Amino acid sequence: MGMIGGGPGAFIGAVHRIAANMDGQIELVCGVFSSDAAKSKQAGEELFLAPERVYGSYKEMIEKEKQLPEDVRMQIVSIVTPNHVHFEPSKMALENGFHVILDKPMTFTLDEAKALQQVVEKTGKVFCLTHTYTGYPMVKQAKQMVKSGVLGKIRKIYVEYPQGWLSTFLEGSDSKQASWRTDPKRSGIAGCMGDIGTHAFNMAEYVSGLKTTKICADLNIVVEGRQLDDDGAVLLKFDNGATGVLFASQIAAGEENNVKVRVYGEKGGVEWQQQDANTLMVKWLDKPAEIYRTGTGYVSSYASHNSRTPAGHPEGYLEAFANLYRNFALTVRAKENGETPKPEWLDFPGIEDGLRGMAFIENVVKSGKSEQKWTTFDI
Amino acid sequence: MGMIGGGPGAFIGAVHRIAANMDGQIELVCGVFSSDAAKSKQAGEELFLAPERVYGSYKEMIEKEKQLPEDVRMQIVSIVTPNHVHFEPSKMALENGFHVILDKPMTFTLDEAKALQQVVEKTGKVFCLTHTYTGYPMVKQAKQMVKSGVLGKIRKIYVEYPQGWLSTFLEGSDSKQASWRTDPKRSGIAGCMGDIGTHAFNMAEYVSGLKTTKICADLNIVVEGRQLDDDGAVLLKFDNGATGVLFASQIAAGEENNVKVRVYGEKGGVEWQQQDANTLMVKWLDKPAEIYRTGTGYVSSYASHNSRTPAGHPEGYLEAFANLYRNFALTVRAKENGETPKPEWLDFPGIEDGLRGMAFIENVVKSGKSEQKWTTFDI
Amino acid sequence: MGMIGGGPGAFIGAVHRIAANMDGQIELVCGVFSSDAAKSKQAGEELFLAPERVYGSYKEMIEKEKQLPEDVRMQIVSIVTPNHVHFEPSKMALENGFHVILDKPMTFTLDEAKALQQVVEKTGKVFCLTHTYTGYPMVKQAKQMVKSGVLGKIRKIYVEYPQGWLSTFLEGSDSKQASWRTDPKRSGIAGCMGDIGTHAFNMAEYVSGLKTTKICADLNIVVEGRQLDDDGAVLLKFDNGATGVLFASQIAAGEENNVKVRVYGEKGGVEWQQQDANTLMVKWLDKPAEIYRTGTGYVSSYASHNSRTPAGHPEGYLEAFANLYRNFALTVRAKENGETPKPEWLDFPGIEDGLRGMAFIENVVKSGKSEQKWTTFDI
Amino acid sequence: MGMIGGGPGAFIGAVHRIAANMDGQIELVCGVFSSDAAKSKQAGEELFLAPERVYGSYKEMIEKEKQLPEDVRMQIVSIVTPNHVHFEPSKMALENGFHVILDKPMTFTLDEAKALQQVVEKTGKVFCLTHTYTGYPMVKQAKQMVKSGVLGKIRKIYVEYPQGWLSTFLEGSDSKQASWRTDPKRSGIAGCMGDIGTHAFNMAEYVSGLKTTKICADLNIVVEGRQLDDDGAVLLKFDNGATGVLFASQIAAGEENNVKVRVYGEKGGVEWQQQDANTLMVKWLDKPAEIYRTGTGYVSSYASHNSRTPAGHPEGYLEAFANLYRNFALTVRAKENGETPKPEWLDFPGIEDGLRGMAFIENVVKSGKSEQKWTTFDI
Repeated sequence: MGMIGGGPGAFIGAVHRIAANMDGQIELVCGVFSSDAAKSKQAGEELFLAPERVYGSYKEMIEKEKQLPEDVRMQIVSIVTPNHVHFEPSKMALENGFHVILDKPMTFTLDEAKALQQVVEKTGKVFCLTHTYTGYPMVKQAKQMVKSGVLGKIRKIYVEYPQGWLSTFLEGSDSKQASWRTDPKRSGIAGCMGDIGTHAFNMAEYVSGLKTTKICADLNIVVEGRQLDDDGAVLLKFDNGATGVLFASQIAAGEENNVKVRVYGEKGGVEWQQQDANTLMVKWLDKPAEIYRTGTGYVSSYASHNSRTPAGHPEGYLEAFANLYRNFALTVRAKENGETPKPEWLDFPGIEDGLRGMAFIENVVKSGKSEQKWTTFDI
Repeated sequence: MGMIGGGPGAFIGAVHRIAANMDGQIELVCGVFSSDAAKSKQAGEELFLAPERVYGSYKEMIEKEKQLPEDVRMQIVSIVTPNHVHFEPSKMALENGFHVILDKPMTFTLDEAKALQQVVEKTGKVFCLTHTYTGYPMVKQAKQMVKSGVLGKIRKIYVEYPQGWLSTFLEGSDSKQASWRTDPKRSGIAGCMGDIGTHAFNMAEYVSGLKTTKICADLNIVVEGRQLDDDGAVLLKFDNGATGVLFASQIAAGEENNVKVRVYGEKGGVEWQQQDANTLMVKWLDKPAEIYRTGTGYVSSYASHNSRTPAGHPEGYLEAFANLYRNFALTVRAKENGETPKPEWLDFPGIEDGLRGMAFIENVVKSGKSEQKWTTFDI
Repeated sequence: MGMIGGGPGAFIGAVHRIAANMDGQIELVCGVFSSDAAKSKQAGEELFLAPERVYGSYKEMIEKEKQLPEDVRMQIVSIVTPNHVHFEPSKMALENGFHVILDKPMTFTLDEAKALQQVVEKTGKVFCLTHTYTGYPMVKQAKQMVKSGVLGKIRKIYVEYPQGWLSTFLEGSDSKQASWRTDPKRSGIAGCMGDIGTHAFNMAEYVSGLKTTKICADLNIVVEGRQLDDDGAVLLKFDNGATGVLFASQIAAGEENNVKVRVYGEKGGVEWQQQDANTLMVKWLDKPAEIYRTGTGYVSSYASHNSRTPAGHPEGYLEAFANLYRNFALTVRAKENGETPKPEWLDFPGIEDGLRGMAFIENVVKSGKSEQKWTTFDI
Repeated sequence: MGMIGGGPGAFIGAVHRIAANMDGQIELVCGVFSSDAAKSKQAGEELFLAPERVYGSYKEMIEKEKQLPEDVRMQIVSIVTPNHVHFEPSKMALENGFHVILDKPMTFTLDEAKALQQVVEKTGKVFCLTHTYTGYPMVKQAKQMVKSGVLGKIRKIYVEYPQGWLSTFLEGSDSKQASWRTDPKRSGIAGCMGDIGTHAFNMAEYVSGLKTTKICADLNIVVEGRQLDDDGAVLLKFDNGATGVLFASQIAAGEENNVKVRVYGEKGGVEWQQQDANTLMVKWLDKPAEIYRTGTGYVSSYASHNSRTPAGHPEGYLEAFANLYRNFALTVRAKENGETPKPEWLDFPGIEDGLRGMAFIENVVKSGKSEQKWTTFDI
């Protein structure tokens, strides 16, 4: 694996490396970790990379790696840069024969997303977008239970992602994270909605299996001086007639990363919350609620496949992230070997999720500005 | 105390009686429990009332009681009928010199609410509307903490009330509760929003101390054949610039009475949920969250006054209800004795809450039908 | 109902009165609330009693009430004095034809308990001992599930009751509660074990249906200067071969009244905790844990009968207490009317529980002093 | 790193490898994964090892690796075999200059433990024993808070570890885990107490900083046919006068790995439970309980150092395990470079913990058989 981005001070780059390392199936062999060559070099050293494979630019990396012997060169590229540097390196990597795993949101604009979709389709390379929360075993259990029909027709979806870390004007300090995430030049047209609203949106569609058709958004800039939304709520309509509520905030002071999803059908509902990630609460109309747990013998194959320890030993965010990497890697290997990947392996977010996520951003910003209640969810 | 309504099969009447009984300060002395005289009589017997004080109509009760000696006749009237029989008996009782405690929502229409407000003001009688959840000690603690300013300026409010009991067409069976609550002739223009949405709305304004100025509502009839909304979500704007999300549902299959409110300020937030009613979670931007608990020594006088047992012995819904009755009764007694009620006693929902609740119903139905996003919250 | 004890500053007397009032089926008609006649009189006034029925001593009360006409005089006596004033008034009340409801622990000594048992048997009066926690609907559900055999043979019991309120030398201040509860002259030979250990012990036997046969106790006086144990732990053996652990403490700083019981059989276990009183967690060997809830349609008749509100509206300590009173009163009324009480009504703690509780106190103190590991649980 | 044990079907071997991999600081370069050479070879292949460095026995591995150039050969040995194969390979590895990380319990007997202690002292090599739970950030926070004195003098410790997986005679099936863990030839003289009781014991001493001086144990074989204890409870006395209760069970049907520790001082208590691993509940005598959380800014340096993600992204069992590996590796590297390890790095369980753990096993078995209540905790 080669990595683009993730140098000093980058939170998500370190997370990607741990996720890739965890199962001992993926080896980091090269990278360009910063636009600053010295910083990149230093990062490479700390990661025990051969100095000649720490590059000065992603272009250089892709070009040079491509020329290495097949059994030496990187096979996959992990891209963990800010949003405005997603499209170009992804495109170039794919077109040069590398499989790509990319941090979300997928691109800077919806147009880029559409263009990337064509590249993925044309090249046939494996593409993964790291919507982490879909990697949790109990989120997969929720999806499978909805899919199986035990809850009946889905009627209502609540999804929320409150955070509090941007309650003050943090971008006025030296916080690298706050700085790029609130900057329209690097994040795009949405702040909170792009950063975490997209996760919430993805969870709603992933667990329910439904597609959003109409939305009504209220976006707010709460902290004075901020350039992008730091809070918002969205009413949703889905393609089967169900409705929903999504809210995300970065000014809910005291909240950590409290993402939660609830999906109700005619007969019952499922509820999952990151702060109790190994539990799926399943509520029923006429009988006691049930607690499904990671690592037990009674969960679906999708949940089991994405778990590493016996029940009661909690698995967390890094394991969920590692599940994306592992499923991506298993799929890559199967494809490279001409084998058919198992359905459980293929259950990772891809280009379609990325496209819908970018459409969410554009639609939610449009709706936020509209005086009309409902706007169609366009792609 | 005399009671109007609350005969056989009525859930809320029994709750009112337990609440009134609990502290041994209020005695039920007369009543009209049903429009069916035989049923009323039977209920009176079961309640150990003197047969001559079980009446055939509320008019009869008010007229006859009024003629009894002052130390014998009822002093307060508790009205627990369906919504369409709220206004007339309240008006008559007040105008005949009785203090009134009334189940919510206050009236059948906003116009009735306005008329009742004038009656209350004119007669100067004490009036209480039973928004139960405001009676919980930890809800009062939340309100006091917001009011004290420790959370900073309030920025965001989430309030929710999911239920699942109307997930099927229960009004097609012999459920008395489902039957009147889904019937526009007895409930009014709103179903879910009138029944529990008003509670959620009241909680948002009660805890935050803010007033709603604009709303954007999505109301749904989910169960086929139903006449009134059984689900809805509302985006809110408040008078200090804060925003909020309110949702309520009666088709969230598997949910009981899961009312929850969260209010966030610049420095922290408070969170309360009926299913863990004796806990108030207080989250802070830069320090550990705190767990405030009913019955402890460190809570505000408003919380202490409304608690009966040492910390750790849970107090529940009936105690919260009894707090409304007790505060109402303490205020009545003080007024009758020419004394000044303590601020803690006066902290019960009254005519203003009722008026705003009815305005919520009318505005939310109007907004639900509107194609415009925001509609002004009019009274 | 007449009451003995429960004057100013008494915590448990007020609780008994609320419990008796709650359902409007029991009326307080007389009492002696303090050994100080003036205090007793004042308490009677505040409770709206006729002055002539506020007595100067329990002897006077029992004698005078007995002479009143049957439809006027008290029918039941509630005794809420400190432990050393349990036996005599109970005996006298029973022997004079009154049914008795008595606060726990039952007597001052085991010998008194045995004597009281004979009185109860001889007089045939109804006797209730207020082990509150057995009144919770979900505790009853637990007992019924164990009894039904769904958990298989019971193997292990954990029961605990940590409190923190005696972490300092509170009896050195003016705390009435701390003062008598730590005083061997008024409490008896045990402190923590008598006050709350007996509750824990009762819960273990009540839920499991088993009887203790051997114990091994470690009792401690942690706070300097204290005269009775304020902390202890007990290993238990039961009559079916199961074993258990019981611990109780009054110096677990920061704990409220955190009583919890867990009973495991071959196939699963039940877990109940007062701080989440409306939930019974049922864990299974090979399938998801289930959450049983108060007020739902799927619980046993024993749980339903002891619940007053729909699911999700929490019922608490006072309701549990009121369940004891209600079941006691229903049984009294049935017996007085020559009817057969329903099994659900008869499910309240009585003389046998009291006897075993006193035996627990004597045995646990004996074991605490013994150098031998196991001592037989003697009665 | 070289590994001994952890071939096909071994649970803990895979866990060790993930833990070692996680931070990209430790590379598995050789191993002997099974006493069956073919199985070992296959495991090595799956782990991408050079075939010549997959050995047939640990002796071979240690001898051959020792002869490799310093920058090629393994530096540390990870030993993950059943208990009866702990001592010999550890001793040999240490004596041949390798640092050792070893699964618990440390040895087969206390005598072996004492012998190993001498080897560690003599060789001066770094030695880590994987008591996983001490690796959790919030367990470290608990220890630091106790140590700081904010809770006052410690008075009471409760520690528990209920599991349910051995509720049936699983060793009669083909479960490799059940088979060796219930076999005295491979596990030693204790079953449940050796496997998980040692963890509970270690937690009690680790968090409190106290040493056990006396114990009173009740060990049980609950499942018919089983050879070693599958359940037990122990009363404890500590060197500062505090007392405690420890219980562990493998027949608590329905429990997963529900380890929990509570430590109370004069002013408050700390409570940690693996099933909510990122929360440390801190309870206070006179003020609201606090919730300390992994990844926040207000925790101690010991907690921060052992955390990888921002607050709210849960870290689990594998991260706790990886913390042991990382601290061990950081210490090894510092020592090899002649640097002084930071105190936070040195905070991993070592030879002293292992020795005390083995003493716990021997003492608890001895006490279990004794008719005397208290036995001295001898080493």
